[in-house]
Amino acid sequence: MMIIMNMEATSKQIEAVVGRVHSLGFESHTSQGEERTIIGIVGNNPLAARDQFVLMDGVDRIVPISRPYKLASREFIQENSTVPLDGVQIGGDGVVIIAGPCAVEDRSLLLENALAIKEAGGHALRGGAFKPRSSPYAFQGLGEKGLEMLAEVREITGLPVVTEAMSPEQVPIIARYADMIQIGARNMQNFYLLHAVGESQHPVLLKRGLSSTIEDLLMAAEYILSHGNRHVVLCERGIRTFETSTRNTTDINAIPVLKSLTHLPVILDPSHSTGQWQYVTAVARAGIAAGADGLIIEVHPRPEEALSDGAQSLKPERFAELVRQVRGIAEAVGRTLPPNKDA
Amino acid sequence: MMIIMNMEATSKQIEAVVGRVHSLGFESHTSQGEERTIIGIVGNNPLAARDQFVLMDGVDRIVPISRPYKLASREFIQENSTVPLDGVQIGGDGVVIIAGPCAVEDRSLLLENALAIKEAGGHALRGGAFKPRSSPYAFQGLGEKGLEMLAEVREITGLPVVTEAMSPEQVPIIARYADMIQIGARNMQNFYLLHAVGESQHPVLLKRGLSSTIEDLLMAAEYILSHGNRHVVLCERGIRTFETSTRNTTDINAIPVLKSLTHLPVILDPSHSTGQWQYVTAVARAGIAAGADGLIIEVHPRPEEALSDGAQSLKPERFAELVRQVRGIAEAVGRTLPPNKDA
Amino acid sequence: MMIIMNMEATSKQIEAVVGRVHSLGFESHTSQGEERTIIGIVGNNPLAARDQFVLMDGVDRIVPISRPYKLASREFIQENSTVPLDGVQIGGDGVVIIAGPCAVEDRSLLLENALAIKEAGGHALRGGAFKPRSSPYAFQGLGEKGLEMLAEVREITGLPVVTEAMSPEQVPIIARYADMIQIGARNMQNFYLLHAVGESQHPVLLKRGLSSTIEDLLMAAEYILSHGNRHVVLCERGIRTFETSTRNTTDINAIPVLKSLTHLPVILDPSHSTGQWQYVTAVARAGIAAGADGLIIEVHPRPEEALSDGAQSLKPERFAELVRQVRGIAEAVGRTLPPNKDA
Amino acid sequence: MMIIMNMEATSKQIEAVVGRVHSLGFESHTSQGEERTIIGIVGNNPLAARDQFVLMDGVDRIVPISRPYKLASREFIQENSTVPLDGVQIGGDGVVIIAGPCAVEDRSLLLENALAIKEAGGHALRGGAFKPRSSPYAFQGLGEKGLEMLAEVREITGLPVVTEAMSPEQVPIIARYADMIQIGARNMQNFYLLHAVGESQHPVLLKRGLSSTIEDLLMAAEYILSHGNRHVVLCERGIRTFETSTRNTTDINAIPVLKSLTHLPVILDPSHSTGQWQYVTAVARAGIAAGADGLIIEVHPRPEEALSDGAQSLKPERFAELVRQVRGIAEAVGRTLPPNKDA
Repeated sequence: MMIIMNMEATSKQIEAVVGRVHSLGFESHTSQGEERTIIGIVGNNPLAARDQFVLMDGVDRIVPISRPYKLASREFIQENSTVPLDGVQIGGDGVVIIAGPCAVEDRSLLLENALAIKEAGGHALRGGAFKPRSSPYAFQGLGEKGLEMLAEVREITGLPVVTEAMSPEQVPIIARYADMIQIGARNMQNFYLLHAVGESQHPVLLKRGLSSTIEDLLMAAEYILSHGNRHVVLCERGIRTFETSTRNTTDINAIPVLKSLTHLPVILDPSHSTGQWQYVTAVARAGIAAGADGLIIEVHPRPEEALSDGAQSLKPERFAELVRQVRGIAEAVGRTLPPNKDA
Repeated sequence: MMIIMNMEATSKQIEAVVGRVHSLGFESHTSQGEERTIIGIVGNNPLAARDQFVLMDGVDRIVPISRPYKLASREFIQENSTVPLDGVQIGGDGVVIIAGPCAVEDRSLLLENALAIKEAGGHALRGGAFKPRSSPYAFQGLGEKGLEMLAEVREITGLPVVTEAMSPEQVPIIARYADMIQIGARNMQNFYLLHAVGESQHPVLLKRGLSSTIEDLLMAAEYILSHGNRHVVLCERGIRTFETSTRNTTDINAIPVLKSLTHLPVILDPSHSTGQWQYVTAVARAGIAAGADGLIIEVHPRPEEALSDGAQSLKPERFAELVRQVRGIAEAVGRTLPPNKDA
Repeated sequence: MMIIMNMEATSKQIEAVVGRVHSLGFESHTSQGEERTIIGIVGNNPLAARDQFVLMDGVDRIVPISRPYKLASREFIQENSTVPLDGVQIGGDGVVIIAGPCAVEDRSLLLENALAIKEAGGHALRGGAFKPRSSPYAFQGLGEKGLEMLAEVREITGLPVVTEAMSPEQVPIIARYADMIQIGARNMQNFYLLHAVGESQHPVLLKRGLSSTIEDLLMAAEYILSHGNRHVVLCERGIRTFETSTRNTTDINAIPVLKSLTHLPVILDPSHSTGQWQYVTAVARAGIAAGADGLIIEVHPRPEEALSDGAQSLKPERFAELVRQVRGIAEAVGRTLPPNKDA
Repeated sequence: MMIIMNMEATSKQIEAVVGRVHSLGFESHTSQGEERTIIGIVGNNPLAARDQFVLMDGVDRIVPISRPYKLASREFIQENSTVPLDGVQIGGDGVVIIAGPCAVEDRSLLLENALAIKEAGGHALRGGAFKPRSSPYAFQGLGEKGLEMLAEVREITGLPVVTEAMSPEQVPIIARYADMIQIGARNMQNFYLLHAVGESQHPVLLKRGLSSTIEDLLMAAEYILSHGNRHVVLCERGIRTFETSTRNTTDINAIPVLKSLTHLPVILDPSHSTGQWQYVTAVARAGIAAGADGLIIEVHPRPEEALSDGAQSLKPERFAELVRQVRGIAEAVGRTLPPNKDA
C-alpha cells in the first residue's frame, strides 16, 4: 500500500502519517518527489488499515499494491485447483457439464430430464429446491421435498446433484442430500451463508453477483476459503449492464481474467447469462473456447410448462446438440469431455 | 398482459394460446391486426403465469400491462404512507434525519456522537452492530454487545435507533433493541430476511441493492408488505455504474420516480451514494430538493480513526452544517425539519 | 506517475526501466520495498509516455499521480471561471436558465415559446436546427433555416441563443447566428469538432457523453481549452445505466465532483437526464441544490405535437412553475436568479 | 405499435387518440379490456409518429411491435450478406482476420508488421492514420502520410487495407487509399459520417459505440444502408460497464444476437474489448466459437514502443499462435480460415 500525499502536505503532516504507520506495527519508506511525497507501507495486510489513513491531513489518496485476497490468488497456489463432484473433477483437463431444470417441480419430470441429460453426456444434475424469486407471488420451490426428489433421481441415474442453499441453516440439510452446494448470485455477499459453507467442507459452486466485480467474487471465495473449505468453483453467470436485448451480459473476459488471477476452477452459466435459449449454445461454445472448466445449463423436457425460467431452458434434444458442439470446442482447445459416471 | 404473436403464427397456434389462457382461469380478447395477432389476458395477476406462454409456438413476446407489485403501488394506496420511528413520522410533512457511525465501535464514542447528532438536530441514531464486509479480514461488528450500546445511548439521549439485520434469526433480537430494522443493500433480495421482517411488524428501512432497478426495490418492499408489515421506508443509496470518481452513482431520478410509483416514504443515503464526505452535503441538499422524506448520514467524531467507512463520514460540526443547509432546502420546498424528540 | 514493478522483477529489468525514464528526458526516484520496487517519474506530463513502460519486462502496472488534464483543473485556475452569454454570466452568483424546444420546427411556434420562456424568467433560448437522430427516418432539423428563425426570435425577444453544431464546418455559421455553440452528448468525443470550437473563441456548451466518465468530460474540455477558447460550460445530461424507468440516470454526484475538480461552470439538463417531463422539475431543483450554475430545459407550447422529445418537454406554464421553485432553491443556497436581459 | 390507455381514460380521450391515428394516415383497431383500452396502429412505420401520441391525455404508454430498422433486419434479407474486402468475402463460410498496429507510425515498422501478419495467415491490414485520442496531448496519427504508407505496404504484401475515417471530408481520400473504411466506436453516431460512407459505396467496418445498445448499432447500420451502401460489417468491440479489471466488457452475447437480428456480417475486436494482450487470444477463440465472421486484432512488432495501445497489442509470434488456435475453433464450428491473398 502506498499513501500519496497531496502537493501542499507539510512535513508535520508527513510525520504524522509515518508515525501512525509505525504505531500500527508497519514499516514505512518515504520517497520525496519534486511535487509530492509518497509513503510506502510494508507489513502484514496493510490494506485492512487503509481507512486509518485516508482522512489524515495532507493525504491525497491510498494506492493498494497487493490484492485484497490471498488464499484465492494464483500467487498463493500456482497450479490449478480441482474440486471433486462425486467422482468427476472440476478444474482438471476435462470439461464438466452440469444440467437440469431451474426448479425441481415434479419427480417424474425430474427423472425424465436427468435420464436425458445423462444420455446426452451431462455429468451432474442441477435443480433448485429452494428458489430465490423476485416476486413474492411466484413459485418458491418445493423445499425439502425437492431435495428428496433430487436424491432419489441421483440414486437411479448416478448423476451427482448440485442445488442451492439460501440460508446458513439450510447448509447441513443440503450437504446431506446434495454433492455440491450452490450459492446463488443474489447471495454472493450473504456473508453468513459464505461462512456456513466455508465450515461445511462440502464442494461449493459460487455464482458471481449480477453487479459484482471480479474482485468482489474473489473476495467472496476468500470468505469460504478462509473458513477452511478449499472446494470452491467460481461461476460467471452474466452481469447487469445497459444492454436489454439479453437478460444479462455474459462477461466472457472474466473467464481468462479469473484463470489468471486464481487457481480455482471457473465455469460458465450461459442460460442465465443470456436468458434466452436461442443464444445458450453459442455462448456455451464461447465459454469453453475462452478457457472455462465447465458449464451449467438449464434443461427442461417441456420448457413451455416450466414454473420458472422456461425461456432460457433447452429441450433435451437441443441440450444433446450443445454437448456435441461443446465437445468439438473442448477438443480444439486440447481438452476433453470426460465420460459421465456410469458410462 | 398481452401476448404478441409473431407474423407467421398459424391460427392453430393462436387457438392453442387462447386455450391455455382459458385453462388457467383467465379471460382473453384477441385482436387481429394486419400483420399479427395480439391476445390480451385479463384476470388476477396473469403476469405470474407469463412463463407458461413465452415458449409456446407462434408467440413473439409478452408485454406486461400492469406492474408486478400491488401493495406497494400508488394505485393501491393513493395518499402517502407514514412510518413511525419512536414519535417521529417518516413520510409526512417533516424531513427526518437519521445519523450515526457506520459501525458501533465503542460506548463512549457512540455517546459522544449521539449527543452531537442530537444537538445538531438529528432525529435518530444509526449504527451497525452486525456488519456486512466484503473482506473476511475486515472488522465485522460488535454483535449483540453493539446492540446493547445502542440501547444504552438511546436511554440517555432519547434518540430512536436504526440498525441492520443480516439474517432472519437476528430479527427478533434487533426488534428488541432497535426502533427500526435496516435491510442493507447486499440483502435487498435476501428473501428469507424480507419474509422475517415482514412478519415482525417492526418498522423497516429497506435499502436499494447496488444493481437493483427501481422495480426490483418495489418488489422487495412487496415481499415485506405481503407478509403483513406496512411500515416500510425505502432508501436510495447509489447504484453501480461505470463512473469511478465516486463510490456509487446517486440515482437522484429515483426519488421522484419512487414518489410517483409508491405511497411508501423514500429517504436518501448520500454517504454511501457518494462515498466521500466532501460530496455528502451537496447531495443531501439535492435529495431533499428532489422530494426525499429524509436522509441517513454517516457521522463520526474522529473519522480518521473509524474502523469502517471513515472516508464518507462527516465530523459532527460538518453534520451540524449539513442540517442547517438541509433545513433551508426543506423550507424552500414547503417542508420542515421537525424538532427532535426531547427538544 | 509511478511504475510498480512486480515481485519477481530482476535488478536488470529495473535498470532497463530507469534507463528508459532517463532517455525520455524524465527524472526517476526508485524506492526499494521489501516485496517490490517502485519507480517514481518526474517531469513534464510523464503520463503521455505511459504506454512506453506498461509492457516492459518486470513492470506490474502504472499508477498515475497527477490528472491527465491541466487547463481545466482547479489547480490551474483556482477561482470559478465565468462564461458570458450575451450579457448574462454563467458560473457567477446567479443561476442561469436556458430553455426552448428540442428542435426548431416553425417560426411562430418558436416565437410563442420564447416569449413564454422570457415571461417566466428564462435567460436564454435553446433550439436545435441540426439534429442528431438515432433513426435515419426521423426529423433531422431545419438546418440553416432554423438558425435564421432563432436569430429572428432573438431580435424580437432579446434572449441569447444556444444551438448545436454537429460538424466542424457548421461552427462558423452557428457562431454567426448563435451566442453559444452546443456540443451534443454524441459528439463529446468528436475531436475535430472540439478542435473547431476550440479555435472559434465562441462560448461553448459541452454536454457529457452518455457513457463518458467525469474525466472523459474534462479531457474533452481540455481539447477546447488547449486550442485557445476559455469559454466552456460543462453540462451533465444523464448517463446510461441498467435502470430503465427513466431515459438516463442523472449523475447528481457529478455536480459537486466537477465543481471540485474544475473551475469551469457546470449546468444540468434534467430534460434529457430524466426523459420524462413529470420528473424534470424535481431533478432541476436537485441540480441547483447540489451546486449547479444553471439549467437547460426543454419547453414546448404543445409537447404532444413536438417533432422530437415531446415526452420530456414542459409546457410553458409548468416551466414557469419550475422557475419559481428553482428560485426558492437558489436562494436557499445563497444564490439568485438574475433578471433576464430586458426586464 | 400499440397505444395503451391508462385505467381512467375516458371514451372522449380514446376517441381523440383514434382520431389522430386516422388523421396521420394509419389504421387503428381498438381492443377494450376490462381494465383498459389498447389501440393498435397499423401502417407504414407508425413508430416514427410515436411522439405524437405519448403525451395525449389518457395515454399510459406506447409499445412498439416492430423493430425500428428495416434494411438491416433478417426479415428484410434472410440469407447472410457478404462484404468483399479485395478478394476475401466477410460473412461467408470463411473466418476473416484483420490485423495490424493501432496507429501507423513508421513505414518500415508497418512493413515488418504486415509481412509477419501475412506469414501468420492474416487476411487484411489495419492501421490508423487519423486517430481519435481522448487526450489533446497524445499522438494524433500521421494523417495522409499514414495512408500513403498503408498503400505502399499493400502494394508490397497484397494485403487489403482497413483504416478509420473520422469525418465526412476524409471519406473520399480514405476510399482512394483503403479497401475498407472503419467507423470508430466514438463516431458510431456521427450521423454525417454515416451519411458520407453511406453514399461512398466503399465497404464499411462499423464499430459498436461503447455505450450503444445492439439496437443503436443496427440503427447506425441502417443509416449507411439507407444511403445506398450495402457493404456494412458490424464489429463488437466491448461495452462500458462497472467491471474495471478489463478495459471494456466483451459483449459475447451480441454475436449470436446480431446474427439472429441481421443479415450483415459480424466480427469481434478482442484487442479493444479486453484492453490487455494477455486476454486477447482467449476472447478471440470465444468470438469465433460464438459465431463471429472474423476478428480484428492489434499487432505490433515491439508493443512496448508503440505510440498507442501497446498494452493490448500482440507481438507477431503471439498473433501467429492466435491464428493457429482460431483455425482450430473455426474448424470445430464447421468453418475455415481461407488462404490469404497471395498464398
